[in-house]
Amino acid sequence: MKLIRYGEPGRERPGLVDADGALRDLSAHVEDLSGAALDPAALARLGTLDATSLPLVEGTPRLGPCVAGTGKFVCIGLNFSDHAAEAGAAVPSEPIVFMKANSAIVGPNDDLRIPRGAEKVDWEVELGVVIGRTAKYVDKADALDYVAGYCVAHDVSERAFQIERQGQWTKGKSCDTFGPVGPWLVTTDEVGDPGDLGMWLKVNGETMQKGSSKTMVFGVAELISYLSQFMSLHPGDIISTGTPPGVGMGMKPPRYLKAGDVVELGIDGLGAQRQAVKADL
Amino acid sequence: MKLIRYGEPGRERPGLVDADGALRDLSAHVEDLSGAALDPAALARLGTLDATSLPLVEGTPRLGPCVAGTGKFVCIGLNFSDHAAEAGAAVPSEPIVFMKANSAIVGPNDDLRIPRGAEKVDWEVELGVVIGRTAKYVDKADALDYVAGYCVAHDVSERAFQIERQGQWTKGKSCDTFGPVGPWLVTTDEVGDPGDLGMWLKVNGETMQKGSSKTMVFGVAELISYLSQFMSLHPGDIISTGTPPGVGMGMKPPRYLKAGDVVELGIDGLGAQRQAVKADL
Repeated sequence: MKLIRYGEPGRERPGLVDADGALRDLSAHVEDLSGAALDPAALARLGTLDATSLPLVEGTPRLGPCVAGTGKFVCIGLNFSDHAAEAGAAVPSEPIVFMKANSAIVGPNDDLRIPRGAEKVDWEVELGVVIGRTAKYVDKADALDYVAGYCVAHDVSERAFQIERQGQWTKGKSCDTFGPVGPWLVTTDEVGDPGDLGMWLKVNGETMQKGSSKTMVFGVAELISYLSQFMSLHPGDIISTGTPPGVGMGMKPPRYLKAGDVVELGIDGLGAQRQAVKADL
Repeated sequence: MKLIRYGEPGRERPGLVDADGALRDLSAHVEDLSGAALDPAALARLGTLDATSLPLVEGTPRLGPCVAGTGKFVCIGLNFSDHAAEAGAAVPSEPIVFMKANSAIVGPNDDLRIPRGAEKVDWEVELGVVIGRTAKYVDKADALDYVAGYCVAHDVSERAFQIERQGQWTKGKSCDTFGPVGPWLVTTDEVGDPGDLGMWLKVNGETMQKGSSKTMVFGVAELISYLSQFMSLHPGDIISTGTPPGVGMGMKPPRYLKAGDVVELGIDGLGAQRQAVKADL
């Protein structure tokens, strides 16, 4: 299934994309795509519905983030061997973990706002893993049982805030609109191997990132198991698993986003995002 | 007012501590201490209630975290000049910001669990600032208008996870039970100057930390204003403002918590916490 949340910010309703690409409303079957509704067993029950019997969604509504109730937006740094090389960093010996504020989460096609004073806003297409069941001290062999599904996540980053403004990356990762998530939460049965997905990102139509989750240093199962040794993962939590090469910071000279730019990004089978870049209000 | 949340985890009810120290139930007046209920104006209305008319709470219930719906648990590093010296670090030129997982939040007297494999669990008494209204790009002069109140926050930290396990502090700060918050959310009118509060922490009755928010490098108003330049702060968000000297890592030799220890900590006017240290399940 390709699950969506549609409607105005804060008032999204759950839905799905049917075999013909039409949006169908799921409100009669699930309150929201959050909490217990994300349990793989609950999603499997949703999957038995006849999609053609669900109400068609009128018009072309805004898409919200494809998951609700995200407590933690956990990110993995330098997790692609080819991106680590581009950043001039060693491949990490164990996952580098940081947190993005969950207040940064927006819909996949919402505007990307340049914060006041920001001059180094950069892009990072990432594979988002949405947790479906509480995970603590789980083994790698069982880790994928805790996944609700996968989505495109954009780990927008302000490099000066992140690196030049005193320790820790949080400041450069957590700005409002810096976490577009979606368009779809694609259930695991439909994704197959999360370690073999093509990933791409364009700015103003020009390809900037092109890679594959194949070059991830630590794979999805390993990341879930690893993180669960340090903290409980809860339904709705998102793990953003790192970015392939081609970020603006790695270019010579570096290249950053400015108002008027358009960013498009996607992952095979998980759909695409499109953000218009604007100055913050 | 000294606001509390009492009852079993996940099912806490709102209440307050009256002038005689008795617990009174507030369920008839507010659903929970979260979201819009934390707006300073809403809290002022609660403050007009005659506390003696509120139902007395029977027995001695568990206290939960004194605030609900915390999206972000934002922490400030090395924010006490005397603690920076102890850690052998320079006083930062601007605030060091990191995030603690909100899943680490527990009640003030809940057990502190040593994660599997942890050997360097350390203590940090901190002044917690609870946000009451959405704050973005706010000036320092207005910043305290966005505060719901203050509380004791314990920024429990595993130093090996934090420092020795590859970049970023998140892993050592986010373990389950590493964020006791409370006992009380004390409204701003009752606290006075948040920059002049005595702070203390004991392990097994022995004083380890003794300090004052006077030696904070960046004060509460400055921190709120600063953070709001990077991200929106929302009602229920907690800013943990850094710790005074006396952490275990700074001792020669270093000293860490082990199962069987008891940690007590408090801040003038904000009450005290007490945690029994236990191995994780």
